[in-house]
Amino acid sequence: MSFTGVFPYLVSPVDPSGAVMDGVLTDLVDHLIDAGVHGLTPLGSTGEFAYLTREQRLKVVKTVISANRGRVPLIAGVASTSTRDAVAQTESMVEAGADGILAILEAYFPIDDDGVEAYFTAIAQAAGGRPVVIYTNPQFQRSDLSLPVIERLSHVDNIRYIKDASTNTGRLLSIIERTRGRMEVFAASAHIPACVMMIGGVGWMAGPACIVPRQSIALYEAAKSGDWTRAMELQRPLWRVNEIFAKYSIAACIKAALELQGFAVGAPIAPQKPLGEAARAEIAAVLRDVGAL
Amino acid sequence: MSFTGVFPYLVSPVDPSGAVMDGVLTDLVDHLIDAGVHGLTPLGSTGEFAYLTREQRLKVVKTVISANRGRVPLIAGVASTSTRDAVAQTESMVEAGADGILAILEAYFPIDDDGVEAYFTAIAQAAGGRPVVIYTNPQFQRSDLSLPVIERLSHVDNIRYIKDASTNTGRLLSIIERTRGRMEVFAASAHIPACVMMIGGVGWMAGPACIVPRQSIALYEAAKSGDWTRAMELQRPLWRVNEIFAKYSIAACIKAALELQGFAVGAPIAPQKPLGEAARAEIAAVLRDVGAL
Amino acid sequence: MSFTGVFPYLVSPVDPSGAVMDGVLTDLVDHLIDAGVHGLTPLGSTGEFAYLTREQRLKVVKTVISANRGRVPLIAGVASTSTRDAVAQTESMVEAGADGILAILEAYFPIDDDGVEAYFTAIAQAAGGRPVVIYTNPQFQRSDLSLPVIERLSHVDNIRYIKDASTNTGRLLSIIERTRGRMEVFAASAHIPACVMMIGGVGWMAGPACIVPRQSIALYEAAKSGDWTRAMELQRPLWRVNEIFAKYSIAACIKAALELQGFAVGAPIAPQKPLGEAARAEIAAVLRDVGAL
Amino acid sequence: MSFTGVFPYLVSPVDPSGAVMDGVLTDLVDHLIDAGVHGLTPLGSTGEFAYLTREQRLKVVKTVISANRGRVPLIAGVASTSTRDAVAQTESMVEAGADGILAILEAYFPIDDDGVEAYFTAIAQAAGGRPVVIYTNPQFQRSDLSLPVIERLSHVDNIRYIKDASTNTGRLLSIIERTRGRMEVFAASAHIPACVMMIGGVGWMAGPACIVPRQSIALYEAAKSGDWTRAMELQRPLWRVNEIFAKYSIAACIKAALELQGFAVGAPIAPQKPLGEAARAEIAAVLRDVGAL
Repeated sequence: MSFTGVFPYLVSPVDPSGAVMDGVLTDLVDHLIDAGVHGLTPLGSTGEFAYLTREQRLKVVKTVISANRGRVPLIAGVASTSTRDAVAQTESMVEAGADGILAILEAYFPIDDDGVEAYFTAIAQAAGGRPVVIYTNPQFQRSDLSLPVIERLSHVDNIRYIKDASTNTGRLLSIIERTRGRMEVFAASAHIPACVMMIGGVGWMAGPACIVPRQSIALYEAAKSGDWTRAMELQRPLWRVNEIFAKYSIAACIKAALELQGFAVGAPIAPQKPLGEAARAEIAAVLRDVGAL
Repeated sequence: MSFTGVFPYLVSPVDPSGAVMDGVLTDLVDHLIDAGVHGLTPLGSTGEFAYLTREQRLKVVKTVISANRGRVPLIAGVASTSTRDAVAQTESMVEAGADGILAILEAYFPIDDDGVEAYFTAIAQAAGGRPVVIYTNPQFQRSDLSLPVIERLSHVDNIRYIKDASTNTGRLLSIIERTRGRMEVFAASAHIPACVMMIGGVGWMAGPACIVPRQSIALYEAAKSGDWTRAMELQRPLWRVNEIFAKYSIAACIKAALELQGFAVGAPIAPQKPLGEAARAEIAAVLRDVGAL
Repeated sequence: MSFTGVFPYLVSPVDPSGAVMDGVLTDLVDHLIDAGVHGLTPLGSTGEFAYLTREQRLKVVKTVISANRGRVPLIAGVASTSTRDAVAQTESMVEAGADGILAILEAYFPIDDDGVEAYFTAIAQAAGGRPVVIYTNPQFQRSDLSLPVIERLSHVDNIRYIKDASTNTGRLLSIIERTRGRMEVFAASAHIPACVMMIGGVGWMAGPACIVPRQSIALYEAAKSGDWTRAMELQRPLWRVNEIFAKYSIAACIKAALELQGFAVGAPIAPQKPLGEAARAEIAAVLRDVGAL
Repeated sequence: MSFTGVFPYLVSPVDPSGAVMDGVLTDLVDHLIDAGVHGLTPLGSTGEFAYLTREQRLKVVKTVISANRGRVPLIAGVASTSTRDAVAQTESMVEAGADGILAILEAYFPIDDDGVEAYFTAIAQAAGGRPVVIYTNPQFQRSDLSLPVIERLSHVDNIRYIKDASTNTGRLLSIIERTRGRMEVFAASAHIPACVMMIGGVGWMAGPACIVPRQSIALYEAAKSGDWTRAMELQRPLWRVNEIFAKYSIAACIKAALELQGFAVGAPIAPQKPLGEAARAEIAAVLRDVGAL
């Protein structure tokens, strides 16, 4: 199984009692697949994995799998500080039916490159041949992956993708040049998708794709066909969506936008706060400008 | 109940299968109480709370409570990104018999002061009157508490202590001056205990106290009696223990030192790695110098 | 006068007694103009402006102006912490015959947006109508320019360009979208030039262009003509030059490469050190790979 | 010659035309010596060295030397990115009559420990036997000195003092333990002077001593006599002066306070801005509280 294209980072709708709201999550999955997304990624940053218990995480993934009905590839997030725990999470995601694993290293104390390699390799093994996407986000996670360790990990058979959420696009080119043929790069929302596609990326995994799926796919198709003039025409207005996403708290922002679009996904998990009125108005304006409201 | 003095941050001995090794943990508790420590703090940073499942955390605390047999106050760590989860942890720690709560805010996305206040206030409420110690460690946690929010929290009845693990001793004096009579300050290992005692601190909570308990208590007694000359004489050699602790990975360092002292507490939780030979030799030399080996 | 294309950041060859070595600087200028560069930029970061006295700075610029003989536009660096001093430097550069000013704000204490705006506006006024390029490099300078202050500065008549040396390519697109028609963007070596050209940049100002001028111009021409496939073919091998430049100390790296190419530009200014043998060998290998040695 | 006690970091009064205002500077020197300060330090951070031309720096030092009339030791600041320039500055300060040198390394590109050692050693040599104080301020300078390089520098004969303006008081104890008998430690305003004296410091060099000289000396005398209870009684209210100094831009803050005390030292050098009304009122209140207004 091979992953390319637009994979929205799904939100995790959870009510104040902690229950996953499966109805609205199912509706969102249907809506995104209808819009043409190439895959689904529950439990990324936008999915508030860091705020969910193990039971809530599994419930989110099972709900998405059930809603998806095998229509598109599903990559489930696994995140831990501990190798043992990450392996257990991976096993439960595989058992639930995930097609691939988005692997995240959370850190408290610093971990050296050998420890990083051991962690991701253990997840890859537990994934039983399913493709693994490494996700590194130096802004929120207390670790970042060095180029040498990324290169080493690219030699693990089923570690086949990386999503690098630094803002450093040159680093993506450095990764591409070092891992060609073994590891493919997905852009994050901090990168300009058109640029990442031009340097050899295969798509993007990001929260904003939840709220502008059709526009994201049009941009992806233009880039894939090599029509860079068209790609940049589509890219320019869409960049404001990424700017908004970077400006406000991520889950709060995407949840607010989805509420505006009619998906009652609720508030981010406390002590996070929902966005205020001014921010909602700004998001509404941006969505209207790109035809997403 | 009032807390003052030396409260070791206990290690969490866990075997490779994930089982808490209650035998050695019980022995360590006995040893520290025999040495005269004024309290015990499981599930601080040194206790690898960030690497333990909820079940492991509770098992550690129950083991310490059972070993303690009510001899000294026990302050159990509670740490989460989510208010609901932190409240649930607090309730289970209180039910298990903890005398106080060490409250830690883990963050992924940034949280504003109102969110920080709401988080700690909810823990305080769940603690049912038991004293709460706020623990902030900007080095490892993805949040730090501002002076205004600390001042606001000092007005919550049972939030009565703070352990600030920044290296900024002036910040401790600023806290003391703003919260006098409502909140007391414990030093962390990054501060010089003699200095913190002189500016008005009431003790320290730190990993090194696990491995030099008698020396820590002698220093505390000298400081408490106002004999600053004696306190500094004891402080100078002990500072090397803190330097070692800052140089090496924290849990790995204290676990290695305890192994040298005959407590088979095992390795830090993977992907953390045990210290190498050179580091162990350096720790052994420092322990010998201060009469702890 | 309008600036587009490849503007090498020139090195400043200074002998151990502090004398500017005008012979080799003149040779380098001839070589670069023969290679087809579109302009010259003495006293950027690579030009070690931060290590030169005011007299040395002026001597460097006068040497380049004299060597250039009006063939290409010359943009002289001006850098200070003080508005008065920056204005005096600008006046002396204009008097010496500079075609434009590269304006740099050095900071010791933090400066607010009003102070930043006042500083650059004063330089623009002193430039007497000559175009000003704002240069911001958050890696080495103790200030960074906010998007709002950049937008405000783009309304000053002769502030017409910005070189942003962050690694954040998305920020460049944000600048372009906000200042269209008033301010143009030059890429720095931390960005992928092909990407910056695609999103609307007009060229790049960077140290590496000193050592791979022909290759840089070929890439620029491909990008300018919209042949992105060709641009990326040229870009891939050239990226290694940027990687080397980011890996080693900047002036030491470019001076070492120029020495390898036969320009005896000497060592970086002490206490900076020349590169060691291993680094020189690595640079030589990269230069050979791209046909620059 | 040996330095101990309270050494105010003097402001540099400069009028809008760039002229050093020697009248008010002379008055300030008289006032501080009358108050009992143990020495004077022109061209520290508070002295805005980073904003002054070489000519202005020398003029400030000559004015202070002339006003001092040999009454107390005078330590003149020398700061550069370049070894040659630092040596030249040192020579001119020595020739002007400075009793010691406050040596500052400014950095643009990172410098390794050998480069750092070479830089300070060259200054020490140029100082011709006069004592050198190393000043490291990681908050404003783009370099920080490692413990190993500090230890190496302590073996240079006339490098006899260090002022470390990190906020990390434990680091001062680490320096003291490693350099005993060769190097003495002065506190900076970010440290609690009473604590630094207790761990073995010999005084402090700081901007706030300009505005609370008598109070600083009383604190110093209490600490020196080992009366720590009295020292802390004096320290507590004085800490608010340090907090204010940390809160506002440093030179702006001390210049505003001196204006309130009747010394017309003018505004900080543009693009820095003078403090606003609210900040001035806050400073006035703090000064009144400690009897300095």
